[in-house]
Amino acid sequence: MAEYIKDGTIRLSNGASACSYAAAVGKMEGEGPLGQCFDYISQGAELGEKTWEKAESKLQQYAFEIALSKGKLQKQDISVIFAGDLLNQCTGSAYGLRDSDTPFIGLYGACSTMAESLMLASLYADMRLGYYFAAITSSHFCSAERQFRFPINYGGVRPPTAQWTATASGCCITKSADKPPFIKAVTAGKITDMGVKDANNMGAAMAGAAYDSLSRHMENLKRTPDEYDGIFTGDLGQVGTDILHELFEKRGIDISRVHKDCGLMLYDREKQDVHAGGSGCGCSASVLCAHILPQIAEGKLHNVLFAATGALMSTTMSQQGESIPGISHVVEISDTL
Amino acid sequence: MAEYIKDGTIRLSNGASACSYAAAVGKMEGEGPLGQCFDYISQGAELGEKTWEKAESKLQQYAFEIALSKGKLQKQDISVIFAGDLLNQCTGSAYGLRDSDTPFIGLYGACSTMAESLMLASLYADMRLGYYFAAITSSHFCSAERQFRFPINYGGVRPPTAQWTATASGCCITKSADKPPFIKAVTAGKITDMGVKDANNMGAAMAGAAYDSLSRHMENLKRTPDEYDGIFTGDLGQVGTDILHELFEKRGIDISRVHKDCGLMLYDREKQDVHAGGSGCGCSASVLCAHILPQIAEGKLHNVLFAATGALMSTTMSQQGESIPGISHVVEISDTL
Repeated sequence: MAEYIKDGTIRLSNGASACSYAAAVGKMEGEGPLGQCFDYISQGAELGEKTWEKAESKLQQYAFEIALSKGKLQKQDISVIFAGDLLNQCTGSAYGLRDSDTPFIGLYGACSTMAESLMLASLYADMRLGYYFAAITSSHFCSAERQFRFPINYGGVRPPTAQWTATASGCCITKSADKPPFIKAVTAGKITDMGVKDANNMGAAMAGAAYDSLSRHMENLKRTPDEYDGIFTGDLGQVGTDILHELFEKRGIDISRVHKDCGLMLYDREKQDVHAGGSGCGCSASVLCAHILPQIAEGKLHNVLFAATGALMSTTMSQQGESIPGISHVVEISDTL
Repeated sequence: MAEYIKDGTIRLSNGASACSYAAAVGKMEGEGPLGQCFDYISQGAELGEKTWEKAESKLQQYAFEIALSKGKLQKQDISVIFAGDLLNQCTGSAYGLRDSDTPFIGLYGACSTMAESLMLASLYADMRLGYYFAAITSSHFCSAERQFRFPINYGGVRPPTAQWTATASGCCITKSADKPPFIKAVTAGKITDMGVKDANNMGAAMAGAAYDSLSRHMENLKRTPDEYDGIFTGDLGQVGTDILHELFEKRGIDISRVHKDCGLMLYDREKQDVHAGGSGCGCSASVLCAHILPQIAEGKLHNVLFAATGALMSTTMSQQGESIPGISHVVEISDTL
């Protein structure tokens, strides 16, 4: 029986294994520093579809199908899919997985969705509420940009704090623990509002949520940052990363040595024009599935916190002058049980 | 340990109790047949707020606060909130519960969200992954109408198949089982597409999902409809209800004797101009929390299936000519363990 520690933190009993994982990405992500790691790199943003939204759905399909195939699984082996995305009414997932014929639990956690879905998929696996579970999410630069900001063709100028929504999808399949990577503990995020109102500065809006969830996770489990060789945040970008480090420093804790942000790992900011870094559900999802989990499986990383971060904003609420709440869920992953 | 049966169905081990529940609704819902049952009835659609979206968030706050108060609980007693709504990026929940300072798992299941959130809140309670858990959802006629269809002031004519989005929110708090109502089993829905493309005919789009989930639930648990004294669907309205009965009749099963649809219970269709019935996350949520659960607690209902139904549509996908996928999750609730 998994053990409830307190304040959102749960320690898994038997643990769960991430038994197969895959990432499907766009051309630009394929040209970035992690380009060699991805399972599928699209040549164009359309993926043969007529709309950006359908292209995003196809990315989810690909990530799911490749993860199944790498795990020598079929969709009938999956007991529940946990999925969500940024599109209004999460249609990236609903349409992408429409033909899955598999029990489906739809999530909305903005760019924190990969941690949210992996948290639930790991708890279900630990509790043996089925056999295999899929955690899936996606984002697409073009579908996100026109939904949240401006139509692509408009060519709006992006401020330096803006982040680049990744065209990417990640899928991680879990089961009850047998081999690494093992999911050992999780902490559910709280909605945290730092009063940021600028939709082009999501890193700042999410940094407080990452700080809150990471602090709670480590405090509740009596851990310190130096017990981890990687603390990966979702997509704070450069602005949010600086704020996160500052928030920890105020309490005399230096996480900069072990902290990396998926939004800063996906692109080469010197060569690729992504301003403050990458973002989007697919950003941390693809970095997790193509880089972090394989590194743990290969024993190159040992104890990791994965804390995807989400900005719970909508254009409607921004137009009504509201600030942007953030959320971050934490999943602890290790190469030993 | 909860027992995984198959194909999305889980039988809870110790069971969970719905220990407190509340519904906050709008004026029109208060004037309907269940008017006497609600905990809070707003005098206007604005709830003192400047926008419909903020009014919807306030409804969620009210439902949550009243459920806490009825259960003699404080927000610190809640280990996790499971919540979602229809608004883009689920802002009804994110902003309504922004100040909750409680671990938050955001869901998107369209109008099936009350069953989805109650399913997870019940599993968490059964597994003792904390102490108390809140399942919350909402909808608001005005915020939904302008987001999904036309601005209110436009006065677009609604076809007879159209449903009326309820201005309502429901909150149900769960804990490990001690007294009725008991949640005993759940079945996660699958995305089901019947090829319906008319956003004004959601009942037809969702009927197949309700049929699939209810059939699976009863088959997996080897039950028949006559073992229940109430099978409540989410909000199929009249059109979807007729289709659901037909789908069961084709297999020689008559569910009409025990079946009721929350969309047909919330309003008096002879006196209230709601066309095919009510809809919206808040419709089944408020009927559950104000009518179904109290009836079970009082021993007037004994064995119930609650199958909220959701249309996973977005205006973007409808404009792209796509059909509307549906989903329905099933929660079995009883007055005995």
